[in-house]
Amino acid sequence: MINTIYQFLEILGTVAFAVSGTVVGINHKLDIFGILTMSAVTAVGGGIIRDIFIGVIPPSSLQSPFYIIISIIASIITMLVAVITKKRRNSLSILKIRQFYDVILILSDAIGLGIFTVVGIDSGIAKGYETNSFLIIFLGVVTGVGGGMLRDIIANQVPMIFRENIYAVSCIIGGAIYVSLIPYLNHSVNMLLAIICIVLIRLISEQKKLNLPQIEY
Amino acid sequence: MINTIYQFLEILGTVAFAVSGTVVGINHKLDIFGILTMSAVTAVGGGIIRDIFIGVIPPSSLQSPFYIIISIIASIITMLVAVITKKRRNSLSILKIRQFYDVILILSDAIGLGIFTVVGIDSGIAKGYETNSFLIIFLGVVTGVGGGMLRDIIANQVPMIFRENIYAVSCIIGGAIYVSLIPYLNHSVNMLLAIICIVLIRLISEQKKLNLPQIEY
Amino acid sequence: MINTIYQFLEILGTVAFAVSGTVVGINHKLDIFGILTMSAVTAVGGGIIRDIFIGVIPPSSLQSPFYIIISIIASIITMLVAVITKKRRNSLSILKIRQFYDVILILSDAIGLGIFTVVGIDSGIAKGYETNSFLIIFLGVVTGVGGGMLRDIIANQVPMIFRENIYAVSCIIGGAIYVSLIPYLNHSVNMLLAIICIVLIRLISEQKKLNLPQIEY
Repeated sequence: MINTIYQFLEILGTVAFAVSGTVVGINHKLDIFGILTMSAVTAVGGGIIRDIFIGVIPPSSLQSPFYIIISIIASIITMLVAVITKKRRNSLSILKIRQFYDVILILSDAIGLGIFTVVGIDSGIAKGYETNSFLIIFLGVVTGVGGGMLRDIIANQVPMIFRENIYAVSCIIGGAIYVSLIPYLNHSVNMLLAIICIVLIRLISEQKKLNLPQIEY
Repeated sequence: MINTIYQFLEILGTVAFAVSGTVVGINHKLDIFGILTMSAVTAVGGGIIRDIFIGVIPPSSLQSPFYIIISIIASIITMLVAVITKKRRNSLSILKIRQFYDVILILSDAIGLGIFTVVGIDSGIAKGYETNSFLIIFLGVVTGVGGGMLRDIIANQVPMIFRENIYAVSCIIGGAIYVSLIPYLNHSVNMLLAIICIVLIRLISEQKKLNLPQIEY
Repeated sequence: MINTIYQFLEILGTVAFAVSGTVVGINHKLDIFGILTMSAVTAVGGGIIRDIFIGVIPPSSLQSPFYIIISIIASIITMLVAVITKKRRNSLSILKIRQFYDVILILSDAIGLGIFTVVGIDSGIAKGYETNSFLIIFLGVVTGVGGGMLRDIIANQVPMIFRENIYAVSCIIGGAIYVSLIPYLNHSVNMLLAIICIVLIRLISEQKKLNLPQIEY
């Protein structure tokens, strides 16, 4: 039962990040193969970096094609939806379409971020680092933000983690809550709580255009 | 005999990628040391990423300076040729010279791509992953495209893998042919066949300006 | 005593790189969290890449939060100084302020570069590679330039190693001197000598605008 929920969440996170990679690829006018690569990099990139940090060699998403295939299927479906709905959208202005894509991007990115932060912490615990809260929260943040960071560096844009406010901060808060509540809550409940927390912080900060202050000179 | 062919191919691939890194460095007006670094990164970068993925620590190209020295020599010769032939080229327009450099870049990159894809697959087999076709083809693609990808990210340009069509696709096709034919063909023959296949797909797609379709909105 | 000097140098290098990351972050108008992340990436990034190359898993700066906390404190102090001195600087032109920040950036980057090159070589020696001079000098260079390179790639600018002349060259010279003198000099004296050497080469080349030649076409 726990394993089923866990695997469902991993698949959902993979799909969410694959969709976000596909949208960035379409925005950058990449060809179909470029978009598929982008979606796979976003979906499995964070987990690969984490696995290298904790010595899971080869990285788990490379040992079997399962998650890469999931991300490719999700990316193909996203592209099909984009093509199919194109006619209907012809009445809309380019600006409105762009805004629609931005909403999809932020939403899918937030869901991937929430799920993979928790998955990353669990990977660290599975490797025996449960007493090192700093390390496992760090692993969670890397798993959460790594794929999107690679996606943005490859697309030659400043990573979302530096452009969007309260991005990694949401992973750190959600991750700290998750790690603190491990002794007290059922695993699945704790996972869902932390994921919802991360997604909400991201979306609210986006909606309210919450800003962390800058230093000016 | 097989070892001789194998080592010859590795040296040739190193030289080819070093030349491509040198051309990108010259195009970006880097200084001599920058160009040498660029050529070494392109030549050994893909292999280093692959070695980290399969746990060859320290990465083989760092255990001995052999391949980095080869890449430096190749880069110095390329720079010398560029300087020596400069006078002769003075009669040509800047546009023609630029086109000439582009041809050298695409050709050397294609040769490096073909050789390192096969070398990467063989590294995976040597580590005992011969039954995991997905993983070893992936290792081949990473070894093939990794150095050029680092070269382009460092030069702050979108990697060729996303700009040029049918780039990683050629590695995947060539790698899949290579892996499928391992039981049936002599090793050296199989290697050469796969390399020629990858180089031809790259060059033909470049020549014919073959495009994979884009998704528009 | 040696350990005290060693740890003092590691902390000083962390602080120096954290300051350089903070200045780049302020220059790029990142928010406070972005600046903190930038300073931590600059401070521990090179060491993490080196640890992955030599199989120190998890990388030492992730096993305990010590150095990341040091970098965050250094970054916060730098930001406070920037804010506090803002009024006094109001009489200065933007150009002069920019020049002042550039001086801070180059100075702190040079100190971090010198210290971490030596620290990186010592890490390689501690792992048993003392007879492989090529490898340990390479590890020194990677530890020295890695954090700044990640800082610049993330900020979407061509890494300083390719823009500033005689950058990695100073690490190679200092590293080679350090490794050659290991049998003859006291450890602490040798470290200080190599660090001073690297910092001086960097600053003099910057001051004199020494250039390595470019290849033109």
